Amino acid sequence: MNYRMIRYLLSVILLIEAVFMTLSTGVSLIYEESVLPFVITIVLILCISLPFALFKPKNTQIFAKEGFVTVAAGWMLLSAFGALPFVFSSDIPNYIDAFFETVSGFTTTGATLLTNVEDLPRGLLFWRSLTHWIGGMGVLVFMLAILPSADGQTMHLMRAEVPGPTKGKLVPKMRQSSLILYGIYVALTVIEIAILLAVGMPLYDSVVNSLGTAGTGGFSVLNNSIAGYNNPVAEWVIAIFMLLFGVNFNIYFFILMGKARDALKSEELRAYLAIVVFSTVAIAIDTASRFDSASETIRAAFFQVTSIVSTTGYSTVDFNLWSGFSKTIILMLMITGACAGSTAGGLKISRVLILCKSALKEIRFMRRPKSINVVRLDGEVLPSGVVRSASGYIVVYLLILFITSLLISIDGFSLETNISATFATLNNVGPGFDAVGPMGNFSIFSNFSTLILSFTMLIGRLEIMPMMILFSTVFGKRK
Amino acid sequence: MNYRMIRYLLSVILLIEAVFMTLSTGVSLIYEESVLPFVITIVLILCISLPFALFKPKNTQIFAKEGFVTVAAGWMLLSAFGALPFVFSSDIPNYIDAFFETVSGFTTTGATLLTNVEDLPRGLLFWRSLTHWIGGMGVLVFMLAILPSADGQTMHLMRAEVPGPTKGKLVPKMRQSSLILYGIYVALTVIEIAILLAVGMPLYDSVVNSLGTAGTGGFSVLNNSIAGYNNPVAEWVIAIFMLLFGVNFNIYFFILMGKARDALKSEELRAYLAIVVFSTVAIAIDTASRFDSASETIRAAFFQVTSIVSTTGYSTVDFNLWSGFSKTIILMLMITGACAGSTAGGLKISRVLILCKSALKEIRFMRRPKSINVVRLDGEVLPSGVVRSASGYIVVYLLILFITSLLISIDGFSLETNISATFATLNNVGPGFDAVGPMGNFSIFSNFSTLILSFTMLIGRLEIMPMMILFSTVFGKRK
Repeated sequence: MNYRMIRYLLSVILLIEAVFMTLSTGVSLIYEESVLPFVITIVLILCISLPFALFKPKNTQIFAKEGFVTVAAGWMLLSAFGALPFVFSSDIPNYIDAFFETVSGFTTTGATLLTNVEDLPRGLLFWRSLTHWIGGMGVLVFMLAILPSADGQTMHLMRAEVPGPTKGKLVPKMRQSSLILYGIYVALTVIEIAILLAVGMPLYDSVVNSLGTAGTGGFSVLNNSIAGYNNPVAEWVIAIFMLLFGVNFNIYFFILMGKARDALKSEELRAYLAIVVFSTVAIAIDTASRFDSASETIRAAFFQVTSIVSTTGYSTVDFNLWSGFSKTIILMLMITGACAGSTAGGLKISRVLILCKSALKEIRFMRRPKSINVVRLDGEVLPSGVVRSASGYIVVYLLILFITSLLISIDGFSLETNISATFATLNNVGPGFDAVGPMGNFSIFSNFSTLILSFTMLIGRLEIMPMMILFSTVFGKRK
Repeated sequence: MNYRMIRYLLSVILLIEAVFMTLSTGVSLIYEESVLPFVITIVLILCISLPFALFKPKNTQIFAKEGFVTVAAGWMLLSAFGALPFVFSSDIPNYIDAFFETVSGFTTTGATLLTNVEDLPRGLLFWRSLTHWIGGMGVLVFMLAILPSADGQTMHLMRAEVPGPTKGKLVPKMRQSSLILYGIYVALTVIEIAILLAVGMPLYDSVVNSLGTAGTGGFSVLNNSIAGYNNPVAEWVIAIFMLLFGVNFNIYFFILMGKARDALKSEELRAYLAIVVFSTVAIAIDTASRFDSASETIRAAFFQVTSIVSTTGYSTVDFNLWSGFSKTIILMLMITGACAGSTAGGLKISRVLILCKSALKEIRFMRRPKSINVVRLDGEVLPSGVVRSASGYIVVYLLILFITSLLISIDGFSLETNISATFATLNNVGPGFDAVGPMGNFSIFSNFSTLILSFTMLIGRLEIMPMMILFSTVFGKRK
């Protein structure tokens, strides 16, 4: 293991965090709030990471294992330091709670344990939503694009970071590709801010809500989330952008390259849109009696569906009060999540597609043992490793789901609360059902459970494997 | 497809059912109840199947596909005719309800929609529990052992029938092996009856409860299930036998062959016992405050754990009232089920073991891409097909789980009710949580949901694939 290089990379990650924190300091200054919480944290980060970041090691070569360890440790460090302003300002005095809230931000989960968000200073709320935006595209892809020395070795970082079972199309010219992806991300965010402003949302709220949408996070600055604005047009705008941020960014990349026709043939994209349409229609029919008009019904269904499938977690109505039928659909959306290569969490639709296809092939194989057993996606035969790793993924996923539910159940809440809290954090969705529903929150849990759920969010965001490798490396060393 | 042979086999299956039904008629005679419901059904079966069963086709050759179709259709026919006595006696006037109850019997699920079991005549209750016993070991393994002409072709029937990912050790001398397995099954049942009699349970109840234990079914003749006897020693006896019937019957086979040491090395057996011990201890600690004494606590925990892990479904306390922690463990036990090659339902422990091992290998493979990626069970390398099919299984399993939950949620019950009802039927457990908990029952559902859940039980009992192949064959023909 190239520890020097890992330490160097981690220092750079922290410095980038400090740079973003100065933005939040700026917001605090504008609203004439105390900047001390941010300044102390920035100084702390500088003292700790500057000495390491200044001297780049001679041997910059890192392999897959180091890549995974760096990514996992990087996200934990980001959250550990990102939590400090909440503690220093006394808005979240308990460090474990602040850590949870920050992990929830960086992992773009959006689960909150704040009972009265509107009480917090605006600079701090801006920082909270900014963590979504930073986390969304992955601070390491960002670093990769910014660092002048990004050579081929950083591919392993990218592999650990970009969500979903990628096919490695973006691997050549890594730095250039990631710059383009980041450009798309920034452009979409800016367009959303502009449109929200145009439909009458105040500037601060437009910015903060767009940051939350882009990262598919879901922290809001009103206690009633997006419902608090009473602005139907803004709801439509945000819903459409949640849908857009759940699309694989490669699609936008290909559209920009003039290959729109190819891009729109993507099986994953089609499955994604089909799921959204089906869910919206089914929920609209089921919940129609709860609303005054058809347009209101459709808007509520579409908003909640795009919010959950993209694992954002904004809400305009309390789906916890819906029927078992609609809740089952919501639960399913929580699990599948949106497209691979987007900022969304969950299993990812391409992984679900691969698994379903391989299962169907297995049935056909039993009927006709002489048939050829290969799985195709977008017409291409998938290597058996991809199928096998998708299967391995779902098993580890189920195991983590069970262990987490069991550990947090010690707190004594209902089965529905425990299981949905685990789903909501592992899939980086945000709200669950029952006590952790859209109108409930995560402050009910003990410190122990809060910590467990923080790690669940990290495991979910990094698609399990990097965290597992970090743990197995740590335990391997102790032996 | 050799339709003549399929028709012949199905007729024989029905005739065997008629033979078993005469046993129930005998019980009705003893208790001086009406024998008409049974007699009419038996005559019906004779009229329909005798003409086909008398003439064995010349071409007896069948392949995997025919085997799967025969097994799936066989179970459905058994249930369709087995339901008639309940309708003819007017105890379950609605045919769909009677079908559900009978499917629940044959699939050894034990989910009931009777609200007052004690009202039913004893002959009918005997028939209800006898279906567990017939279903338990698989009527086709039975037929295989009895039919004088059982040649190598029947292997495909066995493959579809014997639960769990088998390694084919019993394939040579199929008929002899199945006779021995059936001998073990009968012997264990008789021993349980004898012990229950010895500890003071009346003869009728001893027999009926032993039939339910052997098939890991769980229908009882008292409204309060086994709790109704107020007999702690009997509870221990039944709990231990539920544990024993969850063990892979190959283990007993090997013990009889004098290879006890080898048999006890089985990884699946060890995992099974470890799960039972861990769950009992954890639940006992969690529920201690609910009971008067330590022995009562341990007994209740052990009974409920063995009942659920073996997917029997007898109960002595209402675990629906337990904490989220204990309920999470119960839910987990429902899902894993017991050993492959036992009469239990669920995913089967060996399948869970294979999946966990392959997932762990996948993590190791990512850390060290040059390591060899094979999965071993009991020291032997598993063929990649076994691992792949276990992965395919879990995906189809999750899909069915979702679709069933969604369909039955139309009835408007809670998420917990719908999901646990699906688990309880798909895994052939019996009781679920909330409205379908140990003290609730399945009569709450509409005819539509009752039918859906009946098929879920069949799909679960036949380990998904045969039912899928039957459906795909039927739909394939229509095209």
